[in-house]
Amino acid sequence: MSSQGQNTGRRPELRHDPVTNRWVIFSPARAKRPTDLKSKSPQNSNPNDNSSCPFCIGNEHECAPEIFRVPSDPSDPNWKLRVIENLYPALNRNLEGPCDVKQDMGVPGLAMGGFGFHDVVIENPVHSVHLCDMEARDIGQVLLAYKKRIQQIATVESIKYVQVFKNHGASAGASMSHSHSQILALPIIPSSVSARFEGMNEYFEKTGKCSLCEVQAKELLIDESTHFISVVPFAATFPFEIWIIPRAHSSHFHEFDCEKMVYLGGLLKLMLRKMSLQLDNPPFNFMIQTSPLQVKESELFYAHWFLQIIPQLSGVGGFEIGTGCYINPVFPEDAAKVMREVNLPVEG
Amino acid sequence: MSSQGQNTGRRPELRHDPVTNRWVIFSPARAKRPTDLKSKSPQNSNPNDNSSCPFCIGNEHECAPEIFRVPSDPSDPNWKLRVIENLYPALNRNLEGPCDVKQDMGVPGLAMGGFGFHDVVIENPVHSVHLCDMEARDIGQVLLAYKKRIQQIATVESIKYVQVFKNHGASAGASMSHSHSQILALPIIPSSVSARFEGMNEYFEKTGKCSLCEVQAKELLIDESTHFISVVPFAATFPFEIWIIPRAHSSHFHEFDCEKMVYLGGLLKLMLRKMSLQLDNPPFNFMIQTSPLQVKESELFYAHWFLQIIPQLSGVGGFEIGTGCYINPVFPEDAAKVMREVNLPVEG
Repeated sequence: MSSQGQNTGRRPELRHDPVTNRWVIFSPARAKRPTDLKSKSPQNSNPNDNSSCPFCIGNEHECAPEIFRVPSDPSDPNWKLRVIENLYPALNRNLEGPCDVKQDMGVPGLAMGGFGFHDVVIENPVHSVHLCDMEARDIGQVLLAYKKRIQQIATVESIKYVQVFKNHGASAGASMSHSHSQILALPIIPSSVSARFEGMNEYFEKTGKCSLCEVQAKELLIDESTHFISVVPFAATFPFEIWIIPRAHSSHFHEFDCEKMVYLGGLLKLMLRKMSLQLDNPPFNFMIQTSPLQVKESELFYAHWFLQIIPQLSGVGGFEIGTGCYINPVFPEDAAKVMREVNLPVEG
Repeated sequence: MSSQGQNTGRRPELRHDPVTNRWVIFSPARAKRPTDLKSKSPQNSNPNDNSSCPFCIGNEHECAPEIFRVPSDPSDPNWKLRVIENLYPALNRNLEGPCDVKQDMGVPGLAMGGFGFHDVVIENPVHSVHLCDMEARDIGQVLLAYKKRIQQIATVESIKYVQVFKNHGASAGASMSHSHSQILALPIIPSSVSARFEGMNEYFEKTGKCSLCEVQAKELLIDESTHFISVVPFAATFPFEIWIIPRAHSSHFHEFDCEKMVYLGGLLKLMLRKMSLQLDNPPFNFMIQTSPLQVKESELFYAHWFLQIIPQLSGVGGFEIGTGCYINPVFPEDAAKVMREVNLPVEG
C-alpha cells in the first residue's frame, strides 16, 4: 500500500445514497483532519519559481512512482513528458480483494471500497511552458500518453470508466502551476456519464442517428480541420464552453487512431489560444468525454467521444448546486461568433 | 415586459441537448455582451457600506417591484422582510403564449421559451444583520415568506418546480452582501430533482419505506428538536454538508405546517452558527429540496422534503464537472462529530 493512504488509518470509500442517486468518493488521504478545510482561497505558487516544483526536470525523486515516460527509456534524463502516480490519490490502486457493493449499512445507502487509479501526466519538463505554448505534435504526444495509459488501465476488469481531465489555474482546481493533467480510473460509471448515455441512446432510438455525428449547424461552428470540428454546443452548460468532436464516429477515445492525435493537438492548441485572447487568459478545465470500458456492442452506434473545454468565468451558487440546472448568460451562437473572430491558423 | 429583459433584444430560452441530457437556461438579460464576462474574482462591496444598497430600508424605490412585505401593509415603512422581483431575472415572468418544447432546431436538441419567476427575499431591513444573527421566530418568518410565495406561484399551471436557495458570500455566488435569498420557479423539472425522485422511488420499491424517514443513524446526527433533525448525509457530496429533515413524512415544503416553521428557523440558526464557529465563517449555500408541483399521488409515499446546507470550502475541477461525481475528503461521521462538539442550545 502506498504511504500517503496510511496517515488517517481510513481507506477511501465510494458511497451511493438513494436520495441524491449519485456516487461520491470519500478520500481521507486528501485531508489531514476535517477541520483543516477551513475556508481559504487556493493560491498557486509563483509560476516562475520552480526551485521547489516536483514536476520540474531534475526533481523526479520528489514525485510518486513513475508509470512511463516519453521517450520511453526510464533512464533517459531528457524526458519530454512523464506519467506518474498522484501523490494524493482520490482512489487507492493497492486496495486488495473485491470491491463488492455493501448494502446493509444501517442507513439507506450503498458503500464499496475505494479502488481505482489516479495518475498525473506532466506535459512538459519546463516549469513555465503551458500546453498552449507547445507545438501541435507535442500536444499530440500528451494525447497519445492518455491513450496508452487508458489502454493499460482497461486491462483491469473492475475499472468501469476513465476520466481524463486538466485543471489550469487555481480557481479551476489546479494545486500545481506546472502544466499537467490527470487520469482518474473509477470502479463505477458516474452519474453524468450515465445521463449522457441515456440521452444519446434516446436520440438514437428516435432518429436512428448518432447525436454527435449530427452536429453540423454552421452558426455553432468555431473551426474545423481534416479529422475534427470545434463547436460551442447547442445547450452549453457554461459560457464559452467548447467541444472538439472527431468527424468520424468513434465511441472510445483510447481506440482512436494514433496518427490523428496530432490533428486533435492542433485544434486543442488553437481553441486554448483563442480562449486566452478573447477571454483574457481565463482559468479553464478540459475533459475527455469517452465511453465506459465495458460497453455493449449495441451502444457503440450512439456513443461518440469528444473533448470538452470549459473556461472558468463564473462561479456556481445554490441554484446550480440544488438543481443541477445551470444558468448560462451567453447564447452558444454568440460565443461561437466571438471565437470565430480571432484569425489564427490551425496547426497539425 | 420588464425593462431589464430588453437590453439585448433576446428572450431567455431553455434548451435541452440529448448529449448532456440536461436543461440549460439561456438568459441574455444577465450579461450585456458575451465578452463582458472576462475572468475576474467577484467582490462583495464593503459589508458595512449601505449607502448604495437597494435592499436597505429607505431604498425601496431602487428595487424591482415588490410582491409582498411583512407586515403585509404595503404602505408600512417599518417592514421586517420584503419579497421582490429580481432586477436581473434568469427567467421572464412576462413571456406570453405557451412554452411548448420545440424539437426541430436544425441540430439535435430541444428549446422552449424561458418563462418563469425569479424573486428575491430581503430577509432583514438592516444591512449588517445576517440570517444567523436573527431570532428563531424571525427566521421562521422568512421561511413562511418562502411558503407563501411558493403557494402563489403554484397556481400557475406551467410551473413545474420551485427552487428556494440562499447564496452567502461572494464565492458562494452572492452579488449583494445584504442578507437575502432567492426563489426561482421553473417550467421544467431539473435533472437533479428527477435523479433524486428516481433514487427515492427505487428505494421505496425495494423496501416499502421512505429513504428520509429511515435516516436515524446516531453517528450522522448533529442535533434534533421537536419537529426536525439535522444530520450529515451518508453520502454527502460536499465536506460538512448538512441536511435538516422534518421528522414527519412530508413531500412539499410549502404544505408544511405554519406553526412548525419557527422550529425549522431555530435549527437552521443553530446549524449556521455551528458552521460559522467550526469552519471559520465560510461562504455557504442553502437550498430547500422539495417535490415538483404536479406530483402524482403515488409519489407522495417516497417524496420527503429537506433543507440542504453546503459550506463552500473547496472549488470544483474538471473531474467533478466531467463526471458529476464529487470528491469529498471528509467522512460524514467525522463531520457530524465536529459539529456535535459545539455546545449551543437549540432555539425555537
